Amino acid sequence: MEALKKYQEIFHEQFDALRFDQKKPSELYGPIDYLLQLGGKRLRPLVSLMACDIFGGTIQKAVKPSIAIELFHNFTLMHDDIMDSAPLRRGRTTVHEKYDVNTAILSGDALLIQSYQFFEDLEPHLFKEVISLFSATAAKLCEGQQYDMNFMQQSEVDLDEYLDMIKKKTGVLTAAAFKIGAIIAQASPEDADRIYQFGENLGIAFQLKDDLLDIFGEKSAVGKKQAGDIFENKKTILFIKALEKGNEQQIKELKYWYSITAENIDKIYAVERIFKQLKVDLLVSEMIDEYTQKAQNFIEQIEGHKISKDILFEFSDRLISRRY
Amino acid sequence: MEALKKYQEIFHEQFDALRFDQKKPSELYGPIDYLLQLGGKRLRPLVSLMACDIFGGTIQKAVKPSIAIELFHNFTLMHDDIMDSAPLRRGRTTVHEKYDVNTAILSGDALLIQSYQFFEDLEPHLFKEVISLFSATAAKLCEGQQYDMNFMQQSEVDLDEYLDMIKKKTGVLTAAAFKIGAIIAQASPEDADRIYQFGENLGIAFQLKDDLLDIFGEKSAVGKKQAGDIFENKKTILFIKALEKGNEQQIKELKYWYSITAENIDKIYAVERIFKQLKVDLLVSEMIDEYTQKAQNFIEQIEGHKISKDILFEFSDRLISRRY
Repeated sequence: MEALKKYQEIFHEQFDALRFDQKKPSELYGPIDYLLQLGGKRLRPLVSLMACDIFGGTIQKAVKPSIAIELFHNFTLMHDDIMDSAPLRRGRTTVHEKYDVNTAILSGDALLIQSYQFFEDLEPHLFKEVISLFSATAAKLCEGQQYDMNFMQQSEVDLDEYLDMIKKKTGVLTAAAFKIGAIIAQASPEDADRIYQFGENLGIAFQLKDDLLDIFGEKSAVGKKQAGDIFENKKTILFIKALEKGNEQQIKELKYWYSITAENIDKIYAVERIFKQLKVDLLVSEMIDEYTQKAQNFIEQIEGHKISKDILFEFSDRLISRRY
Repeated sequence: MEALKKYQEIFHEQFDALRFDQKKPSELYGPIDYLLQLGGKRLRPLVSLMACDIFGGTIQKAVKPSIAIELFHNFTLMHDDIMDSAPLRRGRTTVHEKYDVNTAILSGDALLIQSYQFFEDLEPHLFKEVISLFSATAAKLCEGQQYDMNFMQQSEVDLDEYLDMIKKKTGVLTAAAFKIGAIIAQASPEDADRIYQFGENLGIAFQLKDDLLDIFGEKSAVGKKQAGDIFENKKTILFIKALEKGNEQQIKELKYWYSITAENIDKIYAVERIFKQLKVDLLVSEMIDEYTQKAQNFIEQIEGHKISKDILFEFSDRLISRRY
């Protein structure tokens, strides 16, 4: 995807020049620099540039807002890693492990505030529209994280509850990233909403794929532990679908394994075996196709656009077809 | 102060009607409600209403922004209490103690985001000006909190460093609260800056007074422990001034006591004795007067104002003359 490369270059030109390591006090800003240096896919910011481009906006105007979105995403990682007691992020020590919890709290706060500041080049009417969307999105992410934590305490999770949680945790930020690009390009409100809906459904499909790949993916080199979700008793879509389809014995067995907190390799084999018996990978793949299709239907409806919408189709296909 | 009562009534009419306890998920919003129910002086929001009124603005327009400031202040309390391992806030259990650290992190994040949302009734040009000031202020508060934590690790703190820290931790939010009221009333940029400077210096005087009252104040009924700063080895202005004025023996003794982390009543008596020998209370009282005077000089310079500036003088006198 040539266009994606172009957006990547434009984004990285400014993003890589950020020097949080030079800001004072270094105890506050150094950990932000550390986290950003760990890398990441950086897909969300590209999405804003893409949307801005498609609707004929000046891409340069969307660069700092796209950085804001990446910074915000990293804020959520810094705080979520504390809450999840995660030792590693992208194969490297998490901020609260490398420094301490207090550092990760306060640097995370500073990062959230910094993300708001990266919108300040927008003129007032765009600024207000974008910030309002951004805050509403940020609030939903907090709610999503709370539901995710609540689910750890529940023995069962309802499918609709789960879909609502991943919509909030993953869908809405992707959606907002697209819409912010569209707003900056002054797309019509209808088109801005369509690209939002595209992003939201694509985000849900992306998370379902993430759940699927945890067990059914190729072993990855990005520092994620294979079957990490089972280790952590995460009630992902695989678990929910398995409970839906399983017989009494299988459900009993699954619930037993998900009540054990000690790391146990037998648990991984046992749970995987049930998932495979019940073909939950096929069921989940169908759901992913449905959400991708739903997302793409919104692309079809987009009216005003200066360059080809093909890039949106390509982007969503690529995002969903990944194998690790 | 009749006017203050009026502002209080206007503020509480809307503030008391907030129902975070009814928002879902309750695990996220319940703790916010709990913290707000603990009460507080609620001075900062009144300051915004006061400034708006003085410059002839519509007070009602400043009410939601004033709530934003109070919510933001409570966000800082929720996170600072985790970092300070504080068991009590206003004599009641802190959020991270009542629930857990994860809850206090995430509910704090939600509260910060919520505070941004309370500005959304402002029209775009005011919204942008106010949000930019608000973010810059919020960033400074994080920096101030970081310096405050750094000081815990240092055996000495420079006077200028200390004044810069309390300016960031206390001065700038008071200053921003005043200026936001002025901006909403569309005061001239010069007057808005003057009232900002007034607030900043008043905030510094206020914090110095707080430091002073920790040792030299009347025992309070608001749940603060007398001499709590000495217990916690906080290098407040009293400590800094004592190091400045003390002889070799006194300095040695002070540093000894401030290196001891166990609670020890002898320590309190010993430190208080040195503070009294050196008359640091008088030295600090002089500083408070200086900052109060500096603040009040900015009031004198304010040009455009629809109602009397006397309320600012009265307010600052009252704030600084408190005895507990």
